Amino acid sequence: MKIKRRQFVKTQSKSAGLPPGTLVHVGEKRLEQPRVVLIDYDEQNFQEREVSDIKECFQFKGTPTVTWVNIDGLHDIGLIESLGGEFEVHQLILEDILNTGQRPKFEDFEKHIFVVLKMISYDDQAQSVLSEQVSLVLGDNFVLSFQESIGDVFEQIRDRIRNAKGRVRKCGPDYLMYALLDAVVDGYFTVLEKLGEKIETMEEELVTSPTEQTLRQIHDLKREMIFLRKSVWPLRELISSLQRSESDLIKESTGVYLRDVYDHTIQVIDTVESFRDMVSGMLDIYLSSISNRMNAVMKVLTIIATIFIPLTFVAGIYGMNFEYMPELKWHWAYPVVWLVMIVIAAYMVVYFRKKRWL
Amino acid sequence: MKIKRRQFVKTQSKSAGLPPGTLVHVGEKRLEQPRVVLIDYDEQNFQEREVSDIKECFQFKGTPTVTWVNIDGLHDIGLIESLGGEFEVHQLILEDILNTGQRPKFEDFEKHIFVVLKMISYDDQAQSVLSEQVSLVLGDNFVLSFQESIGDVFEQIRDRIRNAKGRVRKCGPDYLMYALLDAVVDGYFTVLEKLGEKIETMEEELVTSPTEQTLRQIHDLKREMIFLRKSVWPLRELISSLQRSESDLIKESTGVYLRDVYDHTIQVIDTVESFRDMVSGMLDIYLSSISNRMNAVMKVLTIIATIFIPLTFVAGIYGMNFEYMPELKWHWAYPVVWLVMIVIAAYMVVYFRKKRWL
Amino acid sequence: MKIKRRQFVKTQSKSAGLPPGTLVHVGEKRLEQPRVVLIDYDEQNFQEREVSDIKECFQFKGTPTVTWVNIDGLHDIGLIESLGGEFEVHQLILEDILNTGQRPKFEDFEKHIFVVLKMISYDDQAQSVLSEQVSLVLGDNFVLSFQESIGDVFEQIRDRIRNAKGRVRKCGPDYLMYALLDAVVDGYFTVLEKLGEKIETMEEELVTSPTEQTLRQIHDLKREMIFLRKSVWPLRELISSLQRSESDLIKESTGVYLRDVYDHTIQVIDTVESFRDMVSGMLDIYLSSISNRMNAVMKVLTIIATIFIPLTFVAGIYGMNFEYMPELKWHWAYPVVWLVMIVIAAYMVVYFRKKRWL
Amino acid sequence: MKIKRRQFVKTQSKSAGLPPGTLVHVGEKRLEQPRVVLIDYDEQNFQEREVSDIKECFQFKGTPTVTWVNIDGLHDIGLIESLGGEFEVHQLILEDILNTGQRPKFEDFEKHIFVVLKMISYDDQAQSVLSEQVSLVLGDNFVLSFQESIGDVFEQIRDRIRNAKGRVRKCGPDYLMYALLDAVVDGYFTVLEKLGEKIETMEEELVTSPTEQTLRQIHDLKREMIFLRKSVWPLRELISSLQRSESDLIKESTGVYLRDVYDHTIQVIDTVESFRDMVSGMLDIYLSSISNRMNAVMKVLTIIATIFIPLTFVAGIYGMNFEYMPELKWHWAYPVVWLVMIVIAAYMVVYFRKKRWL
Amino acid sequence: MKIKRRQFVKTQSKSAGLPPGTLVHVGEKRLEQPRVVLIDYDEQNFQEREVSDIKECFQFKGTPTVTWVNIDGLHDIGLIESLGGEFEVHQLILEDILNTGQRPKFEDFEKHIFVVLKMISYDDQAQSVLSEQVSLVLGDNFVLSFQESIGDVFEQIRDRIRNAKGRVRKCGPDYLMYALLDAVVDGYFTVLEKLGEKIETMEEELVTSPTEQTLRQIHDLKREMIFLRKSVWPLRELISSLQRSESDLIKESTGVYLRDVYDHTIQVIDTVESFRDMVSGMLDIYLSSISNRMNAVMKVLTIIATIFIPLTFVAGIYGMNFEYMPELKWHWAYPVVWLVMIVIAAYMVVYFRKKRWL
Repeated sequence: MKIKRRQFVKTQSKSAGLPPGTLVHVGEKRLEQPRVVLIDYDEQNFQEREVSDIKECFQFKGTPTVTWVNIDGLHDIGLIESLGGEFEVHQLILEDILNTGQRPKFEDFEKHIFVVLKMISYDDQAQSVLSEQVSLVLGDNFVLSFQESIGDVFEQIRDRIRNAKGRVRKCGPDYLMYALLDAVVDGYFTVLEKLGEKIETMEEELVTSPTEQTLRQIHDLKREMIFLRKSVWPLRELISSLQRSESDLIKESTGVYLRDVYDHTIQVIDTVESFRDMVSGMLDIYLSSISNRMNAVMKVLTIIATIFIPLTFVAGIYGMNFEYMPELKWHWAYPVVWLVMIVIAAYMVVYFRKKRWL
Repeated sequence: MKIKRRQFVKTQSKSAGLPPGTLVHVGEKRLEQPRVVLIDYDEQNFQEREVSDIKECFQFKGTPTVTWVNIDGLHDIGLIESLGGEFEVHQLILEDILNTGQRPKFEDFEKHIFVVLKMISYDDQAQSVLSEQVSLVLGDNFVLSFQESIGDVFEQIRDRIRNAKGRVRKCGPDYLMYALLDAVVDGYFTVLEKLGEKIETMEEELVTSPTEQTLRQIHDLKREMIFLRKSVWPLRELISSLQRSESDLIKESTGVYLRDVYDHTIQVIDTVESFRDMVSGMLDIYLSSISNRMNAVMKVLTIIATIFIPLTFVAGIYGMNFEYMPELKWHWAYPVVWLVMIVIAAYMVVYFRKKRWL
Repeated sequence: MKIKRRQFVKTQSKSAGLPPGTLVHVGEKRLEQPRVVLIDYDEQNFQEREVSDIKECFQFKGTPTVTWVNIDGLHDIGLIESLGGEFEVHQLILEDILNTGQRPKFEDFEKHIFVVLKMISYDDQAQSVLSEQVSLVLGDNFVLSFQESIGDVFEQIRDRIRNAKGRVRKCGPDYLMYALLDAVVDGYFTVLEKLGEKIETMEEELVTSPTEQTLRQIHDLKREMIFLRKSVWPLRELISSLQRSESDLIKESTGVYLRDVYDHTIQVIDTVESFRDMVSGMLDIYLSSISNRMNAVMKVLTIIATIFIPLTFVAGIYGMNFEYMPELKWHWAYPVVWLVMIVIAAYMVVYFRKKRWL
Repeated sequence: MKIKRRQFVKTQSKSAGLPPGTLVHVGEKRLEQPRVVLIDYDEQNFQEREVSDIKECFQFKGTPTVTWVNIDGLHDIGLIESLGGEFEVHQLILEDILNTGQRPKFEDFEKHIFVVLKMISYDDQAQSVLSEQVSLVLGDNFVLSFQESIGDVFEQIRDRIRNAKGRVRKCGPDYLMYALLDAVVDGYFTVLEKLGEKIETMEEELVTSPTEQTLRQIHDLKREMIFLRKSVWPLRELISSLQRSESDLIKESTGVYLRDVYDHTIQVIDTVESFRDMVSGMLDIYLSSISNRMNAVMKVLTIIATIFIPLTFVAGIYGMNFEYMPELKWHWAYPVVWLVMIVIAAYMVVYFRKKRWL
Repeated sequence: MKIKRRQFVKTQSKSAGLPPGTLVHVGEKRLEQPRVVLIDYDEQNFQEREVSDIKECFQFKGTPTVTWVNIDGLHDIGLIESLGGEFEVHQLILEDILNTGQRPKFEDFEKHIFVVLKMISYDDQAQSVLSEQVSLVLGDNFVLSFQESIGDVFEQIRDRIRNAKGRVRKCGPDYLMYALLDAVVDGYFTVLEKLGEKIETMEEELVTSPTEQTLRQIHDLKREMIFLRKSVWPLRELISSLQRSESDLIKESTGVYLRDVYDHTIQVIDTVESFRDMVSGMLDIYLSSISNRMNAVMKVLTIIATIFIPLTFVAGIYGMNFEYMPELKWHWAYPVVWLVMIVIAAYMVVYFRKKRWL
């Protein structure tokens, strides 16, 4: 939970005041050792390996094949600087890659296209959304991807490359970047489904048996929604500018696929907004529900008190010790008092029935 | 109810990670066997038949008559793929047709115009809005329509074609598509009328006798509104881009009719927004209403308690067993105590009248 | 009241599914017999008569004078069709005229300009806003106006025509249409004034003596506002497109007058929005007010109970019948008990004063 | 107070239905006799006088000096018509000047520029915002200004003209109009300061000692905000169109000053919006505050009742008069009962401490 | 605290009515004596000194080196006027510099670029956001900066200039201005982090132990958010117009850095909006939480009262002193009464369990 709660503002202050382009890692160190995996392919050839020395990647720079270098773990600044230097990545890009508090954005640096966005997944145990920053650098014949930790939503793309399924092996690095973006956006759907189920369960609970726990859950859900909104609205902008960009690095044929991702993003936004409406409606229902219950409690109290308080008063009257109380000596006084009490009680019950409290 | 509750996010995860253009059916299988109905007509000729083998449709492809193939049931991927192949429908269109979690949209694929939207109807028994995805593909001289299940809002159009009523037999496939769109939008009005009646009934109930049931109904209505909004806002965009599209497939003369559908869509949106305002106002009224009732309950309790608690105290005083209590021996003590009590009670009643609690 | 409550969705389903241009009357039949009034004038001449046969109007079609045909009552489809036929009105216009659930709009059909809008008035008895659809068709040298029932806001315009007051007799049919629009918009002001007074009365009441009745009135007012918004926002759009329209039917000199109506419409919208804010604020005040009262009730209960419950307990103690209770035999016990009780009560009063409950 | 409460809709109905350009005074008559003050100046010369006959102003029309005619009081239609006639002011402008329910607006009539806006001031005694309509007509070498009553925010400008301070004597009538606008906008700041102080006082009060009075004040403040918004948003539009206008009447050099007024207007709007947020937050705080107090009241009641009700029951038990109640005869029964009671009470206190109610 | 509370409207009235360009200091005097610090540098040379006479700065005006004059304290109008005169700063700029109630804005005066914005910092002791107005004037080869008091966020920039770190010594005054802007925006992040932590602490508290103190804190936080929004939204506009400006004073190479600041500003806005959502959600949670507690209190009261009131009544019955009450003489009456009481109490407990109140 702690992890999620910290997501809203990264400790930017670490880098505040430094000259632009200074490389500082902003974020938590989630890994002991960064992991670098290289995939190199064209229609005929394919190789994949985990490299221990970043320099192994450099030989692939000039080749006509598509080279995908994926780095998990961002705290080794030297590694990223040396990779960036070799692939001629702009200093400002490197700075943004290292700062994990970035807002999703697209930037066109002529020689490279830089995209940074949030990859989310749902942690079933903590019942919360996890988020990780992914940066993509698209160059002439390569894609560099940077993640905060091991584990991502790209496994199926790797499979498609390994087994030459679909078009990925036939297309260039821009198609690869599209595929990565698409996988990230698809990841949002998976999370939204989980949240959708959670919302449904809670709505059921809300009506049948609301507890204080429910209130806390609504609150948590609200936070998730605020967080998702913050991640997903800029995503739309990002993909839309990517689509409109006139960079040579993106082939025209990739345009139709980007339109598809764009549609998915809009759908994600729609769903997030609907969920938001639903969650904020839940709080109103919750409040009404509590008021209803309080009302019920009050009614019970009122009924009991209103019936018995007058009766107790009557009993109190004849418990007084005055010497001259003629009723006390009447022979039928006791049954008459009982009768009076029963009449009072009956009248009250009728009154409450009329008021529909019973 | 289950059906509706599931509508917000379809299980997209099924198709997540697959290469684009892979055909997967996302949604529930609502039919045993897909049903294919072919209607072929021009101004003079007309034929309609249910085909058992999709290949029967293929011969109509080249003919100058308007061909309308309607398919109910989307789970037979082979069937849809073979139809799509014959009519040269783009792979991405087919993928969207099969995925029933689409956002309403319009896409121009040059050779085809693709439109996907939600057809809604009102289930009187479940008291809820049912929704089904309808995809339309407009080609040179044909319209393909895809639905999730049997039963639709197109019956009157079929009648008009059969009986050569109106202009439909005289116009091309673009007019047919317009007619289908129009029927779907008209379906929204029917549903809105039902919801309008429901809202009115509930408003009456809200003022006269709100119960917990009412709260649940308001909540359900709120959900319906969120869902309708989500379906109807993109519809406006859809029809507006259709209108502005410069595709050769849409004749200029159809423009004036599209403007008409556009106006209807705006009206639907206006009504949905008004309903939303009304429903969200109802919750406030409900809360106020409950507070009012709680107030009434409290007053009764307070009046009873405030009158009798002091009296009971007085009775308690003279129920004490002290040996030296001079009052106990006075001859007129008992009537005097009664008098005191009546004065106290009367004073209280006057006080409550002044406070307008009685 | 019924009338108003039905306004949000007209029974569009009656016409749903019919081919476009089919004439069906959607709305209630408010009159036995439609009434047709013809006014024909130019700077020198003027005639006005109620016609029994619609054909009497046809002769005025070709004349250079301005002809204004006003029809009250829309259920006689034959009449409207024949009038429309003679004046060559587009079939889609006629369809819209008959459907009283139209959204206010402007349409330019080259040979005609068509405007449909809501004329409102305030029913003092039912304390609610009444609304009627008015359709205007502007042609070469005529204006056709269609209303749902007898009684309108145009009487002063008729007077001005009859008595040749103002510019109306000197100008063409476009000026007449402007004058009609202006009269309708002025009608909104009259209604808003009434609503403004009602709001003021209610605000006074809200603070001095809120009742359940108040809640219902707030709710009704809220509905009126939703309804007015729905009528008035499209009006702005309507007049603005009329202004920008490049139709030959509207002379340039009329432009400055249209700008004036436009300003009025904006003012109406501003006022409606302000009223909406006020009304929605009233509900909050109402809720706070109820809470305040509940609080007051609670305090009375608490003060009484908190003072007397301990005293009653003390009295109860000495009402016990144990044989060995030394206090009972003390000579000063009774006055001492009284003293103790008075001290307790006094302490409570002081405590409540400190808490500002008294 | 009455004055303020009437501001939202002026009795437009008075002028409804009249032909455009008909002069009718809409608003209250605030003065017995209109007052006309004439100021005429150029860099060298200056004269100022109160004129009793409007014709005295006419001679200044043709002179090259800047002439400023200020009229307080709008009910003398003849006077305004004759002035308007001489200075060739368009009939529609005159109509707008007389109607004090105008929305702030700018209009360019080629020969004149017409600006109408609201001048506000704060009435310390009534604790409310007062508003007055000011109309400005800028002509070739004159400015006409119309106010509803005597007393305005222009005194400092008159001083600057009298004493030839600043640039005003060196510049033309457009600079004068700018100066008047600037003075009006500065007046908004003065009012906002007062309101800001009021808000602060109330916030302090809200936390320390909220009363029903507070609620009413919040409500009044909310109204003021709605009213200010309505006056100030169109002001921005007004000044922005004035800036963009290409009229020859406004010299280019005045542009930089208009930009300055525009900035001030934006600042006013920002502040009004912030105040609005604050005021609407205050109501929530108020509600929470009341709930808190009710909670406190409830706790006291509950603590007292929960402690004493069981004790009273115990006392009641031993007040029963059964012949065979062995406890009554035990020697230590009375102290034991006391002990039991003390234990019960102590347990309750501990329980409440645990629940943090004490 | 006082300081913060006064921020919303500065006492503009001081300058209201004065001719434009009149220099008046609007704001509080925070310093005894203004402090002027001069930094002059190019790639090779560097000097920094605190000057006591403003004239010492004037010699640097013509030199090709970059001159940065920083002034803390704005109340010495003579000093600022003389500096402004020497550097030919427009009178309107000087007026804006002195008025500390400015809205953040950018203005291009051809010879100079003027930027005014809010520098914020977090006061840990007062637990509130402090704000100070910073004005920057960019000229040919100099930057003038004006602050309200000593202490700013520029220390790291001074270090970079002193030690020739980064690019600042190599670039011109436009880069210096960028660096100053960047430092201010980075300051927002620092404050947001603090606020983020505060929000988290409060959310924790809100669920575990809400008090009246919490309510006050939420209210204060809400104010901070309103204030931050007001400062930060215009900032975005400011930087965006700076970016788009075509002034010669800003070199093209600085554009990429401005884009970077722009991105940061957007991120600040996003975060402020998210915080706002969170804070406003907290109030709802608070209200629900109080309602929950009230409910709990009510239940305890109801349970105790409902169990003991009937029992006390029974005891009251047999405390009556009638002569003829047969039960009083029965031998087993006392234990039977106890039994009856225990049964009643047990039934109540079962009832409450069923209702889940226990």
